[in-house]
Amino acid sequence: MGTPEVDSGAVLAAALQRPVCVLGLGLIGGSLLRAAVDAGRDAWGASASTTTAEKARADGYDVADDVAAAVRRAAEADALVVVAVPLTAMDDVLAVVGREAPGCRLTDVTSVKEPVGEAVGRRAPAARFVGGHPMTGTEFSGWDAGSLQLFHDKVWVVATDDDADLEVWTDVVALALACGATVVPAASDEHDVAVARISHLPHLLAAVLAAVGADGGELALALAAGSFTDGTRVAATRPELTAAMCEGNRDALLSAFDDALGRLGAARGSLASTGGLLSTLTAGHDGRAALDAARQDRREVRIDLDPSPAEHLEAMRELGRTGGRIIGWTSEALEAAAPDED
Amino acid sequence: MGTPEVDSGAVLAAALQRPVCVLGLGLIGGSLLRAAVDAGRDAWGASASTTTAEKARADGYDVADDVAAAVRRAAEADALVVVAVPLTAMDDVLAVVGREAPGCRLTDVTSVKEPVGEAVGRRAPAARFVGGHPMTGTEFSGWDAGSLQLFHDKVWVVATDDDADLEVWTDVVALALACGATVVPAASDEHDVAVARISHLPHLLAAVLAAVGADGGELALALAAGSFTDGTRVAATRPELTAAMCEGNRDALLSAFDDALGRLGAARGSLASTGGLLSTLTAGHDGRAALDAARQDRREVRIDLDPSPAEHLEAMRELGRTGGRIIGWTSEALEAAAPDED
Repeated sequence: MGTPEVDSGAVLAAALQRPVCVLGLGLIGGSLLRAAVDAGRDAWGASASTTTAEKARADGYDVADDVAAAVRRAAEADALVVVAVPLTAMDDVLAVVGREAPGCRLTDVTSVKEPVGEAVGRRAPAARFVGGHPMTGTEFSGWDAGSLQLFHDKVWVVATDDDADLEVWTDVVALALACGATVVPAASDEHDVAVARISHLPHLLAAVLAAVGADGGELALALAAGSFTDGTRVAATRPELTAAMCEGNRDALLSAFDDALGRLGAARGSLASTGGLLSTLTAGHDGRAALDAARQDRREVRIDLDPSPAEHLEAMRELGRTGGRIIGWTSEALEAAAPDED
Repeated sequence: MGTPEVDSGAVLAAALQRPVCVLGLGLIGGSLLRAAVDAGRDAWGASASTTTAEKARADGYDVADDVAAAVRRAAEADALVVVAVPLTAMDDVLAVVGREAPGCRLTDVTSVKEPVGEAVGRRAPAARFVGGHPMTGTEFSGWDAGSLQLFHDKVWVVATDDDADLEVWTDVVALALACGATVVPAASDEHDVAVARISHLPHLLAAVLAAVGADGGELALALAAGSFTDGTRVAATRPELTAAMCEGNRDALLSAFDDALGRLGAARGSLASTGGLLSTLTAGHDGRAALDAARQDRREVRIDLDPSPAEHLEAMRELGRTGGRIIGWTSEALEAAAPDED
């Protein structure tokens, strides 16, 4: 009813070979450039850091010092531009995109989706933006920490909002799959609420645990074993990166925070009065069991692409909400996307 | 001055081949029986569970269903008795020890040292008790989860209190080293304060994190990656075991809890008002760096055994307090312990 229909075969065909321009070559961007090249894509990058750019070129990659030049090249090639800089540098890089390639296909690989969407609205409002978030951070950072395997079997969230451009959405899904990831489609706001609980809160608890443990002195650190080592691993991440990620998701994080504080306060009260921690620990055990069960659940479903973007996007969001992932294209979709023989 | 002196060569010689009787064959006890046999010790065990005892016998180990019989054999052989049952079963097993082998050499492998010492005082007051705590728990439990490698390169705390029997203390250290562990000597109360911070608090935070994450529903669990997976790993432990461990260390855990709640409250307030999490995250980063630095610090020192037990024990406690470990015996000590040739 007035909704434009999409020739999904042609869209997929283009997405499968879309050139890729990566802005920012830290852990995620650097790994993405490597993985995209490895997947056979025409891919290039840019870094504001001369040192990083030199390292990447020394490793054989097509990398410019000049972000503007890389973006102009993306405009000419109709490439997918991937912004892979921390939130703190997002506005500056997006301003270059808005100036040099205002209507480009654009995605990002940052942890929080709503603030990035707002920054795009300020700096590159005409860009065809579909956000992304590969769930692959480690406590390491920088080009040297990257690897073309970083995304392998990891989850890559692709923002699936009502106003998403279905062509660009397909570009981003195709890039994620090409890098070896599986795709969870999610609305930006639902994504941000979820990652507050399973990424941002864990980083804060790890930091607090690390500080409390170190306050126990050398004896405590000498006794630290698996529970402390695993529980504090991400506290080794650069604090500035974690702060930018967490502060960018303030509202959702406050809600997760209050849930945790409520449970901790109840446990503290129970331990001090009746000594009982079993209900807290049982809830935790059940939560962890739910995680393991979710990972075991590997039913495969085939979803026909609905030619109406609105219905397609809602079907995809519902897939994500119920724990589903996109793991690949059907053979029929790939056949429809194959170039005509002549 | 009235303190009995010890012939450390003879003590070590006996400790190096002391028979071992393991009561309880779960993850820790079952691994200990395997490791002691592998190290060439005469070692046997007992389990109140017929199923466990049958499994252990099927695996070739000398295991009785009857705890009392195993303990009587220990009395006859002057073996080191190792109580390897959870805190909740401690009193019952110690009552058998107190009845069948009242003056035996006795240690344990439980997380909290002061409550075990009190239970020994109630149930087996004449036992020559020196507590122990291998820092090797995993989220798994039971005989099948055990491994003779469980203690390899792990820390094994040996309680080093003023009233410790230096012969039994040497027995326990020798057993830990024979199992491939390194030994941290620590007073029972100092141990309990330390493990509240680096073991019991991590278990509670893991439980709370797992519950908060699961509250985020299937989308959140689908997005869970390293920070959540690592941060909740120990929440998979049987809640009853964790509860007994944590509740047995109430006072020290409350103090660690309050330190964590204070830091979390400050972070929550800062996030809600000015948005700043950097000081919390920087303190966590520094704490984690202190852990890594402590693990890098591998200076080797040689400590001559002081023939006065009181001075020896204080020197050992000071070693532990400053982050030191016992990693083995000097060649001179082993030579002094070697049997005379004839």
